[in-house]
Amino acid sequence: MTWLNLPPDSPFGVANLPYGVFSVDGNNPRAGVRIGDAVLDLAATLDDPVFAQPSLNVFMAQGPTRWREVRARLSDLLTDERHRATVEPALFELSRVRLRLPFTVADYVNFDASEHHARTMGRMLLPDAEPLPANWRHLPMGYYSRSGTVVVSGTPVTRPQGQRKAPDETEPSFGPSRRLDFEAEVGFVVGTGSHPGRRVPIEDFREHVFGVCLVNDWAARDIQEWERVPLGPFLGTSFATSVSPWVVPLEALEQARVAAPPRDPHPLDYLRDTEEWGLDLELEIRLNGHVLSRPPFAAMYWTPSQLLAHLTGNGASIGTGDLYASGAVSGPDRDQRGSLAELSWNGAEPVELPDGTTRGFLADGDEVTITATAPGPAGSRIGFGAVTGQIMPAASPAGWPAPRS
Amino acid sequence: MTWLNLPPDSPFGVANLPYGVFSVDGNNPRAGVRIGDAVLDLAATLDDPVFAQPSLNVFMAQGPTRWREVRARLSDLLTDERHRATVEPALFELSRVRLRLPFTVADYVNFDASEHHARTMGRMLLPDAEPLPANWRHLPMGYYSRSGTVVVSGTPVTRPQGQRKAPDETEPSFGPSRRLDFEAEVGFVVGTGSHPGRRVPIEDFREHVFGVCLVNDWAARDIQEWERVPLGPFLGTSFATSVSPWVVPLEALEQARVAAPPRDPHPLDYLRDTEEWGLDLELEIRLNGHVLSRPPFAAMYWTPSQLLAHLTGNGASIGTGDLYASGAVSGPDRDQRGSLAELSWNGAEPVELPDGTTRGFLADGDEVTITATAPGPAGSRIGFGAVTGQIMPAASPAGWPAPRS
Repeated sequence: MTWLNLPPDSPFGVANLPYGVFSVDGNNPRAGVRIGDAVLDLAATLDDPVFAQPSLNVFMAQGPTRWREVRARLSDLLTDERHRATVEPALFELSRVRLRLPFTVADYVNFDASEHHARTMGRMLLPDAEPLPANWRHLPMGYYSRSGTVVVSGTPVTRPQGQRKAPDETEPSFGPSRRLDFEAEVGFVVGTGSHPGRRVPIEDFREHVFGVCLVNDWAARDIQEWERVPLGPFLGTSFATSVSPWVVPLEALEQARVAAPPRDPHPLDYLRDTEEWGLDLELEIRLNGHVLSRPPFAAMYWTPSQLLAHLTGNGASIGTGDLYASGAVSGPDRDQRGSLAELSWNGAEPVELPDGTTRGFLADGDEVTITATAPGPAGSRIGFGAVTGQIMPAASPAGWPAPRS
Repeated sequence: MTWLNLPPDSPFGVANLPYGVFSVDGNNPRAGVRIGDAVLDLAATLDDPVFAQPSLNVFMAQGPTRWREVRARLSDLLTDERHRATVEPALFELSRVRLRLPFTVADYVNFDASEHHARTMGRMLLPDAEPLPANWRHLPMGYYSRSGTVVVSGTPVTRPQGQRKAPDETEPSFGPSRRLDFEAEVGFVVGTGSHPGRRVPIEDFREHVFGVCLVNDWAARDIQEWERVPLGPFLGTSFATSVSPWVVPLEALEQARVAAPPRDPHPLDYLRDTEEWGLDLELEIRLNGHVLSRPPFAAMYWTPSQLLAHLTGNGASIGTGDLYASGAVSGPDRDQRGSLAELSWNGAEPVELPDGTTRGFLADGDEVTITATAPGPAGSRIGFGAVTGQIMPAASPAGWPAPRS
């Protein structure tokens, strides 16, 4: 138990302790840990310059032994009341701080690890074809995307422009996306890198992955549809990716570990799970405050340890700050779908909102918020910070907002 | 004319002055400029700490006005004999230095800008289909790949492993790629970034692109073939990308500018060339010293200014150190093809080497070298540093070389 005045069921208790980067009055962005509705200033508390930096990367690069030490020390500081005098001056109320991008993103990979999502998209877009590609159950599908446009929760997202061609149009045209979507995903943050030319064995997952965040991988479905054959997603998804400001340490998710669903066929050796790394995260997606969906991460076909083993299977080295995301998290039920395209059946069955309006895709001004919790010790819950983003109208070339259409 | 003792036709005369990063005896990697067969130590000569760093990024971020100033100053130092006493102590023979990765790669994008390459690959792999996808002439196709595995020329390349399934196999298996290939490409290095949400107009190309290098985008065709539908290239190309150690400034390529081939249909407005940015680079590819091909960059369908305008068309911001490559450079003729797959017709017509061996794809120990020159002032040539790489046998999980098969 912490000596802080926290409700016993706080999702940000001492069993969680997610890491972020914060600033007060815009000064000295530095590392912090969330406890309840406060941020503990790590540089001030632990007297280590590693935490005085505006990103977690140097700490993440120190590796799992150090991660465990720091976590144990923080747990001690927050549970032993004798440390109150040391800790209290380093606590800042969340409402007083600005949260920054918690780590400098090196390479960013997006997977497609939910069979429910892949099947629904397949059925919806190509109703006469086999919904899953022939390779889907043999390997986790993925692609690289833009690391430089990964932004922290709260950053406005400008509606992208691009080439799009509706099926009834003979020529493509350039303009604002008409089918802007979100994808609710879970992201895995790499702490320690690997050696070029050597793959990371699946059992080494914990040696490399520092923690877990929430991801909204925004997608312009119309731009994507026109560009994606044969080289895959490109400008339809590279314009912005939002991440939660808190990275939950892998150690905080021990009680969330579950077996993945049965896999058929058996994965090849390098993808064969040696430990259970399914994660029982319950996501919640809100559009303008209204709950749209509650996707279950436990239903994902491929686990994060399999994703890492696959990502490095070719000998590609990983590095500190790499982010790989799960792809849209969708469950078997309609109210568990992880994208608006799935929920609105590609716009054909618009979603109704409490204000009487409907959405096939996102409108300018819409705000999407994704949250999640996971089982913690003794019936508690581990909270993930929300990832939220609001859609701004498409910009003209000179950067002035275009008139609202 | 320089006061240095250089042959008048040197491809590394004062009209070139490409930038790189070098170290002597492994110490203090820092910026240099190549002149003849020597490297000029910029930190020592220009007394600016920006050049004392192990990457060009800080200099590149300073923007085009500064790039022009530094180039003019270097030109003056190397042509006015009164500076000999200042300059000579800062010159190092190339044979004495180690060349490093010249810039820290931010995001890495690979395009497919050669119509000849796209058509040949299409005809070869899907002989009964239309060789160009329907969107190909409307937009430059591209995809993101791994920036963390971009390596400097001379770095050995370990044969990747991965899942591959030949057409006559019923199940995929995991193992070393059997169809390892190169792609000879030209890379464009971004100096100054852009604002999130605003596209970079095509006429601003020169404000953002610092210079040009050569790229070998290694490709495992079998891994790629099995994984690529529907999300595009992933592990088949993310294991390694080699770049030349010298970045030729855009200013050195004024005489190389040519009109791009006629385009049909007319590109949409945002892709419409306002200036000629086709580039008359003549590439040469050698395999174990034997010339395989001489691809002409002037034959590329999309110009580098169009590639940048497209890359940012969705409002994705670019940043210092971004690298975007052209895709394999192939000309209309057989001996102008930019990949071994094209030259060997996907292995069906192996290429003969002078030692009597043949290659459908690359063997362990093979060394691929790509060079290029471009027209310079008064009939001179501008040289690009070679990008070279040798194939090492696939590694076992523990990192020990596997037995040669």
